[in-house]
Amino acid sequence: MNTVKKRLLSPAIIAILLIGFTNPVFSTDDPLPSWNDGPAKQAIIAFVKDTTDQASPKFVPPEERIAAFDQDGTLWVEHPMYTQVTYCLERVPAVVKAKPELKNVQPFKTVLSGNREAMAKFTMKDLEKILAATLTGMTVDEFNAEVKKWMETAKDGRWKRPYTELIYKPMLEVMQYLRANGYKTYVVTGGGQDFVRVYSEKVYGIPPEQVVGTAGGTKYGYAKDGKPILTKEPKLLLNDNDAGKPEGIHLMIGRRPYAAFGNSSGDRQMLEYTKAGEGIRLSMLVLHDDAKREYAYGPAEGLPPTKVGAFTQALYDEAKKQGWVVISMKKDWKRIFAFEP
Amino acid sequence: MNTVKKRLLSPAIIAILLIGFTNPVFSTDDPLPSWNDGPAKQAIIAFVKDTTDQASPKFVPPEERIAAFDQDGTLWVEHPMYTQVTYCLERVPAVVKAKPELKNVQPFKTVLSGNREAMAKFTMKDLEKILAATLTGMTVDEFNAEVKKWMETAKDGRWKRPYTELIYKPMLEVMQYLRANGYKTYVVTGGGQDFVRVYSEKVYGIPPEQVVGTAGGTKYGYAKDGKPILTKEPKLLLNDNDAGKPEGIHLMIGRRPYAAFGNSSGDRQMLEYTKAGEGIRLSMLVLHDDAKREYAYGPAEGLPPTKVGAFTQALYDEAKKQGWVVISMKKDWKRIFAFEP
Repeated sequence: MNTVKKRLLSPAIIAILLIGFTNPVFSTDDPLPSWNDGPAKQAIIAFVKDTTDQASPKFVPPEERIAAFDQDGTLWVEHPMYTQVTYCLERVPAVVKAKPELKNVQPFKTVLSGNREAMAKFTMKDLEKILAATLTGMTVDEFNAEVKKWMETAKDGRWKRPYTELIYKPMLEVMQYLRANGYKTYVVTGGGQDFVRVYSEKVYGIPPEQVVGTAGGTKYGYAKDGKPILTKEPKLLLNDNDAGKPEGIHLMIGRRPYAAFGNSSGDRQMLEYTKAGEGIRLSMLVLHDDAKREYAYGPAEGLPPTKVGAFTQALYDEAKKQGWVVISMKKDWKRIFAFEP
Repeated sequence: MNTVKKRLLSPAIIAILLIGFTNPVFSTDDPLPSWNDGPAKQAIIAFVKDTTDQASPKFVPPEERIAAFDQDGTLWVEHPMYTQVTYCLERVPAVVKAKPELKNVQPFKTVLSGNREAMAKFTMKDLEKILAATLTGMTVDEFNAEVKKWMETAKDGRWKRPYTELIYKPMLEVMQYLRANGYKTYVVTGGGQDFVRVYSEKVYGIPPEQVVGTAGGTKYGYAKDGKPILTKEPKLLLNDNDAGKPEGIHLMIGRRPYAAFGNSSGDRQMLEYTKAGEGIRLSMLVLHDDAKREYAYGPAEGLPPTKVGAFTQALYDEAKKQGWVVISMKKDWKRIFAFEP
């Protein structure tokens, strides 16, 4: 045992370890240990090597290294319902308690009844009323505190774990790998910008200012004690879905990403826009084809379409045509969640 | 000569130099050499020391260190006209060349006539027409190229220098000093976000994604060759003036700054919002009281009000009441521009 320990700590080994720790680019460690070897893993590693090698014609200056990640279905589970929609539904009792006049008004009445079948039939207008009531009207600080509190206690129905544990470990590794190589990583989500910002730093290592999402306006004013406050308003500034994703990227970042990751038709324009930039660009699509370990939906294996995260056949065809790399959860991911053994 | 060189490069000196270069916090060099000693300089240095000293109760974690700088009148000259307005007026001939039908239409006709007296009488509606015609309708890439080209050749009337040389050296030092101490510096300008982003990295060392400004929408579409493009639209998303500044900071950054710098009533809400945060916060106002080296306007010394950059008596009074620090260009700045001897 001692001999092994001694041999392990020889100066040469220590030197290699130090190089490994301080210079991840040249580390012999696998930067993506939760990935099986295959075209997806190889595409990520080749992209990082090419864009960070000063001798390569594909070299990208550090300040231009931007990578964008969709959230729902790309970084964490989006089934059976977007987490933020679950949050809004679960906030309804507190909202009605503060405003009892909503108790017998639809769609709040149905939410309070707990009738999931009736809730599944909500129209877009019903949902908008719920979103407005639960995401606006309070100060920015109050909203942040509410989301933070909910995130600490709410649990997913299938895994019985906090939603923030239902993050895809392989994608966390990609983000860390990119950051270790000088990339600024951004969440670019159709979800609420303020919602995701509450936990993005803790969960993804991405600070609030690098979260681009669907954003409503705020109104500057003063509290009773004269302190300035910002109140969340039911006024849509940016619908960060579809064409709104590249538009949001321009508004919030002002540079075209070199890499983008998505999983649904809502990410199509972001993936197109990224891939169309000069030089080498990486666009990747997560395919949910693992019914056993997560969920299966999408076209690739004749899977049924779903209400959320529509990965249509047309999107699959465009991916093949444009050279986007499809990530098969089933084949490419050795493990899906950090809590798995 | 050789002896001096030898002595200068002794190991001890090299060690001191290395410490100086890698650890600016403990450097004995003056971080603000263009500032005269006084309350303004002292306030900046005390703020940085307090917020970066782990032993201080005022310590601010690195990820929360955000500093916001207004641009016109705070970072560069805003007289006699905002630089971006000059840009728009000087773009009019090219716009009319591309759209000859505008030649005899107001306000373009007046701009083409070169009659400055008539231009000075433009209403807000006239200006809006000029801004829409010169800042929208083209792709984002075309706009960037146009601004870049103009910035390389256009010159200010008084100093006969490119506008990007009319940056206040003392403020550049403040930005560098803050960044060397872990602060992320942002421009938060009433000017156009896309306009400032073109030169912010080169001129201020601030990347495009750290520029918050008045922003219009873009529209995602496809060029004739099928490539995705973003076209600038005459649709206002964010008016980054007055209450729009804290609202814009929330939208684009999502955190309250610890330090903010402004010079006019358009910065009032940003300075209030910054100063009202928990812990120690620094709000500073640049007072233009140096008619000889730059311009004099504002209330402090009975200076005349101006069309741009209104530093009103009410603002001065609020500064005193709220504990904002007023920077006197005349007294606090040893030199104003980098090109001065």
